[in-house]
Amino acid sequence: MKNVNIGLVGLGQIGIYLYNELQKKRKDIELKTGKKINITAISAKNIKKKRKFKINKKIFFKNPLNILKNNKIDILFECIGMSSGISKKLVETALKNKIHVITPNKALISKHGDYLSKLAEINKVNLEFEASVAGGIPILRTIKESLATNKIKKVYGILNGTCNYILSEMESSKDSFKNVLSRAQKFGYAEPGNPKLDLNGYDAFAKIRILSSLSFNKNISKHKCLMEGIERIESKDIEIADQLNFRIKLLGITELINNKLFERVHPCLVKKDSYIANVSGVMNAVILHGEPVGETVLQGEGAGPGATSSALMSDLLSILRGNIKFPFGVSSKKRKFVSSYNLNMYSNSLYFRFEVNDKPGVLSQITQSLAKSSISVERLIQIPDHKNKKASIIIITHKTNELDANKCLKSFKFNRNILKVPTRIRLF
Amino acid sequence: MKNVNIGLVGLGQIGIYLYNELQKKRKDIELKTGKKINITAISAKNIKKKRKFKINKKIFFKNPLNILKNNKIDILFECIGMSSGISKKLVETALKNKIHVITPNKALISKHGDYLSKLAEINKVNLEFEASVAGGIPILRTIKESLATNKIKKVYGILNGTCNYILSEMESSKDSFKNVLSRAQKFGYAEPGNPKLDLNGYDAFAKIRILSSLSFNKNISKHKCLMEGIERIESKDIEIADQLNFRIKLLGITELINNKLFERVHPCLVKKDSYIANVSGVMNAVILHGEPVGETVLQGEGAGPGATSSALMSDLLSILRGNIKFPFGVSSKKRKFVSSYNLNMYSNSLYFRFEVNDKPGVLSQITQSLAKSSISVERLIQIPDHKNKKASIIIITHKTNELDANKCLKSFKFNRNILKVPTRIRLF
Repeated sequence: MKNVNIGLVGLGQIGIYLYNELQKKRKDIELKTGKKINITAISAKNIKKKRKFKINKKIFFKNPLNILKNNKIDILFECIGMSSGISKKLVETALKNKIHVITPNKALISKHGDYLSKLAEINKVNLEFEASVAGGIPILRTIKESLATNKIKKVYGILNGTCNYILSEMESSKDSFKNVLSRAQKFGYAEPGNPKLDLNGYDAFAKIRILSSLSFNKNISKHKCLMEGIERIESKDIEIADQLNFRIKLLGITELINNKLFERVHPCLVKKDSYIANVSGVMNAVILHGEPVGETVLQGEGAGPGATSSALMSDLLSILRGNIKFPFGVSSKKRKFVSSYNLNMYSNSLYFRFEVNDKPGVLSQITQSLAKSSISVERLIQIPDHKNKKASIIIITHKTNELDANKCLKSFKFNRNILKVPTRIRLF
Repeated sequence: MKNVNIGLVGLGQIGIYLYNELQKKRKDIELKTGKKINITAISAKNIKKKRKFKINKKIFFKNPLNILKNNKIDILFECIGMSSGISKKLVETALKNKIHVITPNKALISKHGDYLSKLAEINKVNLEFEASVAGGIPILRTIKESLATNKIKKVYGILNGTCNYILSEMESSKDSFKNVLSRAQKFGYAEPGNPKLDLNGYDAFAKIRILSSLSFNKNISKHKCLMEGIERIESKDIEIADQLNFRIKLLGITELINNKLFERVHPCLVKKDSYIANVSGVMNAVILHGEPVGETVLQGEGAGPGATSSALMSDLLSILRGNIKFPFGVSSKKRKFVSSYNLNMYSNSLYFRFEVNDKPGVLSQITQSLAKSSISVERLIQIPDHKNKKASIIIITHKTNELDANKCLKSFKFNRNILKVPTRIRLF
């Protein structure tokens, strides 16, 4: 029976959980792959940090690069999590030394995935990153293997558990974004220090890029076509959506339109009785349309050390079974550059919320501006706030393209009766 | 580049769709696996039958076993579909001749899977059957590979598209079982000749057996622990369920209780706002609880030639990538016998519907019998049918074990005022 040496770098929440799983599941792994694993090197910033599970200090390295130099390891887990810097350097060096790499690092893969996959292919080792998208949901392996011969047309879903938790909580508790965020941070559903990359859509966008690349056999795209987060969603929006039989969800969507790639992440109004509207809390869900398989839905825990470890372990078993694969399903040589869809052309019904002074003529100023930009109104609701002599005006438009919408929104900038930048949420 | 020869036996709806897919996707397969496939032998009962796609008659064999004798084939697709007979003989012979086998045949695998997987292991070839459970949903690969190191506790779902279609249609059209069934047959959602194996739960049970075996690393079970179909569900039940905020679904459920295997297929009352209640039409869904991944949900088309071909092709690609695996995830030697849970112990809330003569004393006879069998009533509804001097009595019980319920139902056999065998539906 072959022995396989494993190195693990990064002992944060995920790394330490994985470390424990690797110890616990040794027998099971032997049973399923015929290989004996040994953790022969670990590395983290601080050896003394208090951790949930005990680590073996004899195999601890302060400098992670020394793991690759001095120790014979076959497989490396990179659990540091930066998009560049030491994370990139480590993965790069490992691949060059013919060491398989497994990482949950979506920032790294969405930025340097093309380069790193080439390195892996040249050196005939695996670069696996199942855990980088939608945590425990095996969406990458499903696209690469289970649906390998399907023609995929569109993939979308809820890809950020933090945002989904906040939106669900805002609805059920009727509390403000700020309060719910601080609760989410307390419970560990949002980064305590800097939750920005979750909230502004960046995290979901990195995942969408990886999904596009796998689904359409293209290089990773470089443009942020449309990326909006949930920071500007207010309780008011959630309440009004509720009255209109909608729910607000942050969706990531990618599709090919006339062979142009249209990737986007933004809050959406989704119909309450739709499947996606009912995926709540920290759950993630991915829906894809393939030919001939039809619609396929996968749902599960999108984050957390348990779900992430499950995905990391599946990558490990794939390597142990001797399954050497192209990291993106096809050879890097065959993955082509893809040009971006022109966002201005994107046409959709929109939800606008204007906060205005309750004065005569304000409503007509708004509707006139809309008409001037060829935006046609499907529904209009005015909610008075008599006490403060203010009002909220909510407008659902007919299909409107982004160019017209942007122009129109700009035109309100100098209207003193409009008290805030209007809120725009796209319908799905 | 290596050439791989493929044989295909059975050119029904699935076989012929697959034949066309294999031709269409040759380039894609080459791109993803580096292998060139050639269909070098096909076989079916009738060469002259009218088919949707043209077949190459030069490679047609009347006797499928001759494919194995005379032709050098590397991979065989068995698309005949019987649980024994020629299907078994063919797969058996192929494996003995070191030919990989791919099949969507759940009847064959659930009956002879243990034996055939041993044969495959001895001969170091693959036996793949992703398409045998839940069609296009990659549930088997997900359990075997993506969740390989998870401890799975329970798997359940909607595993028969025919039944799910009929129940959904009965709800939306308010039509009878009989009428909806004949529509389903017309549209190709139910077998035109003999739909019994779908309707009585047998088909779902075969799938549950395969799921159990993979999820718990056990041999395939031999007992039909609890198998009930949907043939006795009436529009009335669906209407009453609706009023009580339930929907009726045929579920397959498997779990280990104190290391005993509890497999069951029966109609269930599920809460309308639950996920599973909203999987409608011919869709299938599988939900599993794993440790540490948490709850994972997969949904997709459970049948039809497109979805089935997608799964068959994923098996093919897995073999072409050189991924030789244990058919059931672990070596046959390590899969153990599992004893069955004692069904009598199973305790659950129940829905009973009694059709009775509207006479004084009948209700009290029923409630007395229930009390005698220690069955406690949570809710009781009597719906009169004045015209015919009859009534329907619906009872939702508190938790009741199967033994008590069966005894009690027997006791009504000789009550002349109870006009039909009472309907029992278990709550989920």
